[in-house]
Amino acid sequence: MSTRYTIGIDIGGTNVKGGVVDPEGRIVARHSIETRADLGFEASFGRIVRLVQELASGLPQSDAQIAAVGVGVPGPMSHEKGLIHNAPNLPGWVNIPFRDRMTAATKFHCVVENDANAAAFGEFTMGAGRDVQNMVMLTLGTGIGGGIVIGGRLIRGAFDNAGEIGHAIMIPEGRACPCGQRGCLERYSSANAIAERFVEAIAAGEPSSLAGRAKEEAALAARADGRIDSADVLAAAEAGDVLASRIWGEACRLLALAIVNIQHFFNTEQVVLAGGLINAGEKLLTPVRRHFAEQTWRICDDAPRIVLATLGGDAGMLGAAALARG
Amino acid sequence: MSTRYTIGIDIGGTNVKGGVVDPEGRIVARHSIETRADLGFEASFGRIVRLVQELASGLPQSDAQIAAVGVGVPGPMSHEKGLIHNAPNLPGWVNIPFRDRMTAATKFHCVVENDANAAAFGEFTMGAGRDVQNMVMLTLGTGIGGGIVIGGRLIRGAFDNAGEIGHAIMIPEGRACPCGQRGCLERYSSANAIAERFVEAIAAGEPSSLAGRAKEEAALAARADGRIDSADVLAAAEAGDVLASRIWGEACRLLALAIVNIQHFFNTEQVVLAGGLINAGEKLLTPVRRHFAEQTWRICDDAPRIVLATLGGDAGMLGAAALARG
Repeated sequence: MSTRYTIGIDIGGTNVKGGVVDPEGRIVARHSIETRADLGFEASFGRIVRLVQELASGLPQSDAQIAAVGVGVPGPMSHEKGLIHNAPNLPGWVNIPFRDRMTAATKFHCVVENDANAAAFGEFTMGAGRDVQNMVMLTLGTGIGGGIVIGGRLIRGAFDNAGEIGHAIMIPEGRACPCGQRGCLERYSSANAIAERFVEAIAAGEPSSLAGRAKEEAALAARADGRIDSADVLAAAEAGDVLASRIWGEACRLLALAIVNIQHFFNTEQVVLAGGLINAGEKLLTPVRRHFAEQTWRICDDAPRIVLATLGGDAGMLGAAALARG
Repeated sequence: MSTRYTIGIDIGGTNVKGGVVDPEGRIVARHSIETRADLGFEASFGRIVRLVQELASGLPQSDAQIAAVGVGVPGPMSHEKGLIHNAPNLPGWVNIPFRDRMTAATKFHCVVENDANAAAFGEFTMGAGRDVQNMVMLTLGTGIGGGIVIGGRLIRGAFDNAGEIGHAIMIPEGRACPCGQRGCLERYSSANAIAERFVEAIAAGEPSSLAGRAKEEAALAARADGRIDSADVLAAAEAGDVLASRIWGEACRLLALAIVNIQHFFNTEQVVLAGGLINAGEKLLTPVRRHFAEQTWRICDDAPRIVLATLGGDAGMLGAAALARG
């Protein structure tokens, strides 16, 4: 019997990652292309179709075949209908019947999933969640995304928006969020929020080592993006900056509170942290675990293990491939 | 072919309710007994076994049979193992293999479930959730319990504690909870918390119509429990008492914020409110819906319908019977 591979595709605003994945979840071939969202949907779609075809044609054995293609897409979508509603980072990707278009173009069975769910499912099948049955993943980046696996299955909800934990309200009447709410978790504990709160506090006149030292400011301004980022805040906190310590600490504390709520809502045995912020490693994990232990209940021990993701940028592709396998 | 009924049993600290339920979910016979927890587990258990046997022997048709018995129990338990860990309102009910004991005593297949989950499943199958696939139920009573149904299945979590939404932290560093946390939802929005906060505020010297009017105080003291309860707070709020209005309003506002979080975590199409507090009817539902609408996000319309439970005290029994049917 021939080996049945799946193809995983992870569509981002800048790049599209593709991989051929074997039945054990190993990536046996991979290729990335630029998304070129600036060319419009049809051009980008054509590029992605060719990526799939190239990956399929390069299969490692002559008797191998592609069982299905899984695609992780950013933004609101319907898994059941295979429809992209509106991808904020991909201008013009509005009401796209992506699944059926892909099947028509390649003849492969296709499954689409939002990228946060795909990444969570990737960690669940091949990464930090490999040995558990229930996990929640929080992706700490520009915003905070979430993915929920209960009993081995993704929880999508009635509107495919389950796991939008970045928009859990942590502080009633707290910081305004572009989503229209106030006090959302991602306004405190995302990489962007940490940098933004730090810069705001300096602008408001709070003392900081980074505020007063022109030389450092100049050096920071010379960075590619010209802005202080969450790594700068962490470095300043490590160097003893009081303001930076406070903001990093608050981000960790509110993240821990959100994990207490995850514990009580979903009661999973594991919570996986992912995204750019986990480059901080133990400097993130240790305070989050400590705040969690201080703030969770005492009436029974049903605390989730809090761990870091292990697959890095491959989680979405692996998860999409695993979902395609079904 | 004979009709296969199930028996639903709802064990409370004071009473045990039992019912025979037909395949369409109708209660065809019912009987309640006192729990008599004061007599210890074995005596109470014997009473419950006799209740099951009496219900079974009184089946409406000669060709009818009992398919299974479902039992809703208070307190931490394991559905999978059929084990009651520790029921706070039932002294001595510690590490009880309830399912196997019941099967040994009655020869009926038995399923046990915690009472909040059983009640949620009852509303899901026969009550306010009859027409939906995904719902969260919040039971607003002494504390706040929760039950979660996704895709027609109860979500129990890895430790059987999923849906403990009363212990979601709504106010960081907020009111202390006996569970060991601070700022739990049930410290603001349960019936007990509403009464307690009101009495505390009066004791702290805040003006209120109920504080200053000795005649009313005396009348209140003459009540069976001698204490102001949440219905008194609502009545005072309705009569224009500023303190009572503020506390009732805050309870509704934080409940609405918790429902925003339920929206983002579980994304169900419905949230059902149950428990003693829903006797307030529209005086609860209208402000909760208004606060929800004011505080939820604007980026898409995935708001759950917020409705009141319809089965009253039968929800747990009906849910236990439905779970027994499998």
